[in-house]
Amino acid sequence: MRVASRDGRPVKETPVTDETPRAMNGAESLVRTLVEGGVEVCFTNPGTSEMHFVAALDRVEGMRCVLFLFEGGATGAADGYARMADKPASTLLHLGPGLANGLANLHNAKKARTPVVNIVGEHATYHREYNAPLTSDIEGLARPMSSWVRTGMSATEIGSDGAAAIAAARTAPGQVATLILPANTAWDPGAGPAPVPPMVAAAVTALRSGEPVLLHLGDRAVRGEGRVLADRIARKTGARLMAMTSNARIDRGAGTVPIERLPYPIDQGIAALKDFRHIILIGATPPVGFFAYPGKPSLLAPEGSTTISLATPEEDQIDALERLAEAVAAPAAEPVAVGPRPKLPTSGPLDQDTIGQVLGALIPEGAVICDESITTGRNFFALTRDAAPHTWLQLSGGSIGLGIPMATGAAVACPDRKVINLQADGSGLYTVQALWTQAREHLDVVTLVWSNRSYAILRAELTNVGALNPGPKALGMLSLDDPAVDWVSLARGFGVAGRRVETLPDFIEAFQHGLANKGPHLIEVAL
Amino acid sequence: MRVASRDGRPVKETPVTDETPRAMNGAESLVRTLVEGGVEVCFTNPGTSEMHFVAALDRVEGMRCVLFLFEGGATGAADGYARMADKPASTLLHLGPGLANGLANLHNAKKARTPVVNIVGEHATYHREYNAPLTSDIEGLARPMSSWVRTGMSATEIGSDGAAAIAAARTAPGQVATLILPANTAWDPGAGPAPVPPMVAAAVTALRSGEPVLLHLGDRAVRGEGRVLADRIARKTGARLMAMTSNARIDRGAGTVPIERLPYPIDQGIAALKDFRHIILIGATPPVGFFAYPGKPSLLAPEGSTTISLATPEEDQIDALERLAEAVAAPAAEPVAVGPRPKLPTSGPLDQDTIGQVLGALIPEGAVICDESITTGRNFFALTRDAAPHTWLQLSGGSIGLGIPMATGAAVACPDRKVINLQADGSGLYTVQALWTQAREHLDVVTLVWSNRSYAILRAELTNVGALNPGPKALGMLSLDDPAVDWVSLARGFGVAGRRVETLPDFIEAFQHGLANKGPHLIEVAL
Repeated sequence: MRVASRDGRPVKETPVTDETPRAMNGAESLVRTLVEGGVEVCFTNPGTSEMHFVAALDRVEGMRCVLFLFEGGATGAADGYARMADKPASTLLHLGPGLANGLANLHNAKKARTPVVNIVGEHATYHREYNAPLTSDIEGLARPMSSWVRTGMSATEIGSDGAAAIAAARTAPGQVATLILPANTAWDPGAGPAPVPPMVAAAVTALRSGEPVLLHLGDRAVRGEGRVLADRIARKTGARLMAMTSNARIDRGAGTVPIERLPYPIDQGIAALKDFRHIILIGATPPVGFFAYPGKPSLLAPEGSTTISLATPEEDQIDALERLAEAVAAPAAEPVAVGPRPKLPTSGPLDQDTIGQVLGALIPEGAVICDESITTGRNFFALTRDAAPHTWLQLSGGSIGLGIPMATGAAVACPDRKVINLQADGSGLYTVQALWTQAREHLDVVTLVWSNRSYAILRAELTNVGALNPGPKALGMLSLDDPAVDWVSLARGFGVAGRRVETLPDFIEAFQHGLANKGPHLIEVAL
Repeated sequence: MRVASRDGRPVKETPVTDETPRAMNGAESLVRTLVEGGVEVCFTNPGTSEMHFVAALDRVEGMRCVLFLFEGGATGAADGYARMADKPASTLLHLGPGLANGLANLHNAKKARTPVVNIVGEHATYHREYNAPLTSDIEGLARPMSSWVRTGMSATEIGSDGAAAIAAARTAPGQVATLILPANTAWDPGAGPAPVPPMVAAAVTALRSGEPVLLHLGDRAVRGEGRVLADRIARKTGARLMAMTSNARIDRGAGTVPIERLPYPIDQGIAALKDFRHIILIGATPPVGFFAYPGKPSLLAPEGSTTISLATPEEDQIDALERLAEAVAAPAAEPVAVGPRPKLPTSGPLDQDTIGQVLGALIPEGAVICDESITTGRNFFALTRDAAPHTWLQLSGGSIGLGIPMATGAAVACPDRKVINLQADGSGLYTVQALWTQAREHLDVVTLVWSNRSYAILRAELTNVGALNPGPKALGMLSLDDPAVDWVSLARGFGVAGRRVETLPDFIEAFQHGLANKGPHLIEVAL
């Protein structure tokens, strides 16, 4: 065995790990720490430097490992899983490039304040200085998309590093915590599993005001329980309720407190807020333009209005709403009147309106909707208000390519609920590989692809930013119709049953078939 | 028009840009700077914040814009383009997430020292403080994979920022230069195109030694001209030639100076170097293990040997070789004896050996080989030594998912040369979307997919790192056969003609058909 040094310094002779029953290594210490800390799923695309972690999976009960073909699938699935399971999953990514491939969906998780224990393999600590091909600045890459970053320094401490990562991920409401795992901290002898410190409850914000206002809701405040509390306050004070444009999770449908969202298009967003004099933020951040546009404001609250932050997304919003309800002597909760279930349309074109009506009529009770519809879905939210009770997950960070991975993770989290992925075609092509994982894991997901064969949102944005009279080169960059992507072939290639529909009756029949049969289905909806 | 401030500070009223003939805006100033600086292709997946750059493309002659469905395609194509065109292309990426999606292949470009002008859109400077959903630390994300990073601060300076980015990208032998383009630096009035400063020629390293040694070649020294010079030195001194394990580009085949590469497997790499006492680096970095392995060294040069750096990859290696040849009084160049062209095998199994023989027999003169074969291709290099003259591009940074994008970019750079992509299946699935761009641009690429339906390299690495006796969960993470990916369906979905072959005669026939017909073809080779 060659363990000599090229520069005169001694090289530590590291024993080869095997299965003999001596002290568990760092990798096994870490996996046991994760399982005992409630982290029971690992979404991964591993490489050489993660092989000891992978090997430890067979020695530890209780960790489900889900493979993806691309890291953006793993990180998006970790986001979808935690939104539904209300606890973090871990990832396992391969060095800097593997992390890089997962960053776009970690961005979405960070913006949604989703808890994620993001584990990234690294070269052995002593190998870094030689600048092997896959060497890169992993901490530097991780920091912009993480709230907590730590590199493990030794196998004896990697268990407690893992416990600290879980605690950081679970800091309310949730954070992306990145733990970097040098290979020798995995294969050297470890110190066994470490206990996770209790979650630090965030401080309660003092109550502010009971004036008639907009209650702008986000995060936990926009889920079912928060909306019931907000509705009680609204009935007493006349305040209006509005959710943020993008929300990690809303439990909604017949019998729940209805809520509208701040519109995405800049002019509609400004108009929706123009009459309010007070905006109380509960789990929401101040309303801002998604982008800047020449000559339009960045902050959307009207001039002269005041904004009161009752509970930031990091604070306990339910507690804050309860205190506010008590301060204004809000009445008790009342059952929400249940309107008639939307009727299934029987004729008409296949367009955004009829699709929204079909969704309203057919969404089954308990379904999880993963919405990356972009332009096609602007009216789906309103048309499904009285659908059977269901859960709606949205694209949180605007970083497209979340839909298929998020649906995959939600289906892992909720094996007994139907998952319906409303998917824009251009966005879906970013992470289409995650369909393979749906097939591999036999996940119960119906993917509806809105096939308009263009980056439709950018056609409007070209005008919004004042780039007038676009020419053929500019418009060519927004078109996906040469060649036309064949989604049925792509689905087949990844082992998922697919069908293309061009009429309303065919869409209804295909959707009903997907709802009635378990397992992944994809329907390409021609628009 | 609402341009009021929410916090008392005045908001600058930005005029809406249109097509009236007044001063050109920042975006047009930048595009004209790029074209006048020799940057003539832009590989892109743009978004809202890049719309003014896109709109400027129709006002400026000489910039070809190539659309990708995923940013990893665009950055990999910029790498492939520049390796062949010997000058940088630009990218155009959408904010932090768009950059993140492109980082893994920028990592490869950085390791290959490929010049890239990497342009990333950003929110308007005054919009950043409001933390809109797509806000992130773009400079922080860019730095690990870039040698030069700058954020434009005003439209009047964005032209000269672009010129500085081109100069940085072209600093020998090539760098990734990231220019971040806030939206208002694109739409505000600009100052017109800026001149690019001349390339700063790197200083020539002093000659060191003429002792009998290994000449370890990389970068420009491993291309045709460098090998002719190295061969002259070797014939005089008895030195041996060896290329790095991974090389950005080698021009090789019949009539060129043959060269072997440092093997990837750790034990073979150590064995290949064990007899050398002096290693002269010319465009190469010191030989290191690709990964660390328990009990094995990181530096591969044998104990007691000396390493002399004659020319770093940043220096002029041809000049250094010429001076060394003169110092040792090397003889003039001699024609390389041309051996018989390899024979096409007529029978036998379809395996690595017969595939390598087919490549040796059929590679057409002038072909560009993009090699991401991973385990399947370990003997292809030796078996194609006497093939018709061709160019070989390798995976440079070990960050898989480069093959299909790199072939796309090479085909854009070399429309009159056949591009052959040797593609491992697991790696190819990372960036399979780039096939769509091959179809859209009618590029002349034959993709040969080695369909072994596993992460085969990791099966060996599991043993190399000492993780013995892997169980079913660990092995499951290395398998891609449930469900089996159908590459022919995927190709069809993206508009590319595909065929699966399972026998040697079928492979030969399909490969000959792909070589004889222009346009993208994919052959799934069952292994």
